[in-house]
Amino acid sequence: MKTTGDQQLVKRINRSVLLRLVRERPGLSRAQLASHSGLTKSTVSLLVRELVEQGWLGEAPATTTAGIGRPSTPLRIHPHARGIIGIETAVDCVRVVAVSLLGEVWWSGEEPLASTAPAAACAQAARLARLAYDGMAARGLRLSGVGLGLPGAFDEATGVVRFAPNLGWRNVDFLPLLTRALAAAGLPEVPVHTQNEADAAALSEYEFASGDGEDALVFVNCDVGVGAGIVLNDRLFTGAQGMAGEIGHTIVQVDGPLCSCGRRGCAEAFIGARAIAGEAAAMGHTRQAGQFLGVLLQNLWTTFNPRVLVLGGSSCVGHPALVQVAQDTLNAYAASAGMAAPALRVARYGMLAPAVGAAALVLHQYLRPMHPRQTARQLP
Amino acid sequence: MKTTGDQQLVKRINRSVLLRLVRERPGLSRAQLASHSGLTKSTVSLLVRELVEQGWLGEAPATTTAGIGRPSTPLRIHPHARGIIGIETAVDCVRVVAVSLLGEVWWSGEEPLASTAPAAACAQAARLARLAYDGMAARGLRLSGVGLGLPGAFDEATGVVRFAPNLGWRNVDFLPLLTRALAAAGLPEVPVHTQNEADAAALSEYEFASGDGEDALVFVNCDVGVGAGIVLNDRLFTGAQGMAGEIGHTIVQVDGPLCSCGRRGCAEAFIGARAIAGEAAAMGHTRQAGQFLGVLLQNLWTTFNPRVLVLGGSSCVGHPALVQVAQDTLNAYAASAGMAAPALRVARYGMLAPAVGAAALVLHQYLRPMHPRQTARQLP
Repeated sequence: MKTTGDQQLVKRINRSVLLRLVRERPGLSRAQLASHSGLTKSTVSLLVRELVEQGWLGEAPATTTAGIGRPSTPLRIHPHARGIIGIETAVDCVRVVAVSLLGEVWWSGEEPLASTAPAAACAQAARLARLAYDGMAARGLRLSGVGLGLPGAFDEATGVVRFAPNLGWRNVDFLPLLTRALAAAGLPEVPVHTQNEADAAALSEYEFASGDGEDALVFVNCDVGVGAGIVLNDRLFTGAQGMAGEIGHTIVQVDGPLCSCGRRGCAEAFIGARAIAGEAAAMGHTRQAGQFLGVLLQNLWTTFNPRVLVLGGSSCVGHPALVQVAQDTLNAYAASAGMAAPALRVARYGMLAPAVGAAALVLHQYLRPMHPRQTARQLP
Repeated sequence: MKTTGDQQLVKRINRSVLLRLVRERPGLSRAQLASHSGLTKSTVSLLVRELVEQGWLGEAPATTTAGIGRPSTPLRIHPHARGIIGIETAVDCVRVVAVSLLGEVWWSGEEPLASTAPAAACAQAARLARLAYDGMAARGLRLSGVGLGLPGAFDEATGVVRFAPNLGWRNVDFLPLLTRALAAAGLPEVPVHTQNEADAAALSEYEFASGDGEDALVFVNCDVGVGAGIVLNDRLFTGAQGMAGEIGHTIVQVDGPLCSCGRRGCAEAFIGARAIAGEAAAMGHTRQAGQFLGVLLQNLWTTFNPRVLVLGGSSCVGHPALVQVAQDTLNAYAASAGMAAPALRVARYGMLAPAVGAAALVLHQYLRPMHPRQTARQLP
């Protein structure tokens, strides 16, 4: 006998099945969805009706296939009925975006960060989020969730920010703070998620891609800190304590310069924003930083064999010279090994990648109702 | 309406659910399995009966819980009814093992590799596998599958070995060759799987662990080549073309010594078996190799945030001095950063890790009937 909880999980799984199928192949009919999903036609009809009513799916005008049978209605993710709010609490500013389920940015706002105190930072983020929400509500759009990216290690299991050195946070019970701040600002009760900024940024590229998404995908975020967001086997990968992707602290020169972390020779000591500050005057620095960024990319390539490497963060967005040196260095390593260099591009959303990615995180969680370990724990 | 294929997949999923639950918690009863899995009691009874008949599960004597109700029968993975054969085709030898479903090694054999021609290597491996199988059959054991690990990049999607430089193989259509050789040697028709040796070795630690397995787990295999096997989010991770984990070709010294791959400053140029050959006479080499291995481990730690790092391969197994220097180096980096060093240990199966892991690969595939992308494609 199934419990109610089981039934709800099955329903959530089936909803996500249908949403992902329609996202990957816009225009599928109910009958095609049934055939692709393995769900019965009646289950599909029931779920699609709900998804249309709730603004997840939209129906295009019915078409008759080959002139016979009942006309079938092509389904699409509804681009203008639901939205998600994404927030980036960066070291010196707050950025907020409102995006569609397909990743179109409808609204964005940015302010200097008024205070690094966790509660104050949440309150400021919530005020900006309220502006985004008001704009959405005025256009009749429904809110699906709020995501937030920040420069630190976030533990999904507990909702705690373990360590965010540049904000001065350690073991901050963050998720309840943020949820309360959003409620106080008058936002409706919706799912709220948090993640490291580079992890979020990786999802901006993965969840809002057309088609299937590139898997594996490594997003390298170059700012004061240098970190990576990693998507593989269809999921964000964050490691045992949420600290995977701290690639700024991989050693690229034994006994090299001292890094802010205390180690010597970390990549961040060469390519962190502090190391390349004033680079217009010191082109040598940019060149060296670009070369070490290229080494880092070559190392990520051989380690992850990804479909694509994506560069983001203030040091890469708008600094084509640095990116070019990194690309040249990566190409040179590939040529030495007689291999084709991996695909490399700059973040599609530029400096908005972590905020848009925080919105993508809401979708990522919604579309994967089960923990990976549950993949072999199916309900009957 | 479900197709027969759908029903078979559902059944395979449900079987794997029950096997994994019993493996993680030996002694569960049918009623507890139903409650933990979400499956109905009648489905569980049916499947358990089959699994017992087929030798996957064994029943311990029935016990009466708290003196009331019907006695319940504790279930366990049957340790002595089924076995798996694992093969390592190494650069200079073939190793074969017969192991239980719980990873006990019943039999092992090793021979110098007679020929590196793919068909000949398969025939030699199959002859040794036949010896292992005869021993199993004499004891009335059933064979669940055969796995093989090799020093190269294997493409799961096509069954092709893309590149195995030390065997001189490129684009070898390997899986059919191996399957034919096993049939010719008189083995029964069972699932046959292949994978890179380091990937296989990682599974020897993950699938044959007691309890849940450590996730993420990175197995560093140090031999002529230096590669890693990576298990994360409950699955082996092999990258877009099966080449993830080529950590021997991460750069640890810009413009360092020339590596066999054509790049300069790769980790393998410092810690590959060729670089540390004759190390008894040249302790300085061992010391440098140990330090660079420590750098590599520190880089894997910050990149993957794993639960455990495992060292294997001929350069680590039986060379405690090298391992000690690597451990000390890793500890020193952790101390500089004010962090606790990650767990590090030497391979539990020593030089048999790739062969035992090849057997574990059979289990890994059996217990995960669906591709990760299918996690959101559940049947009704």
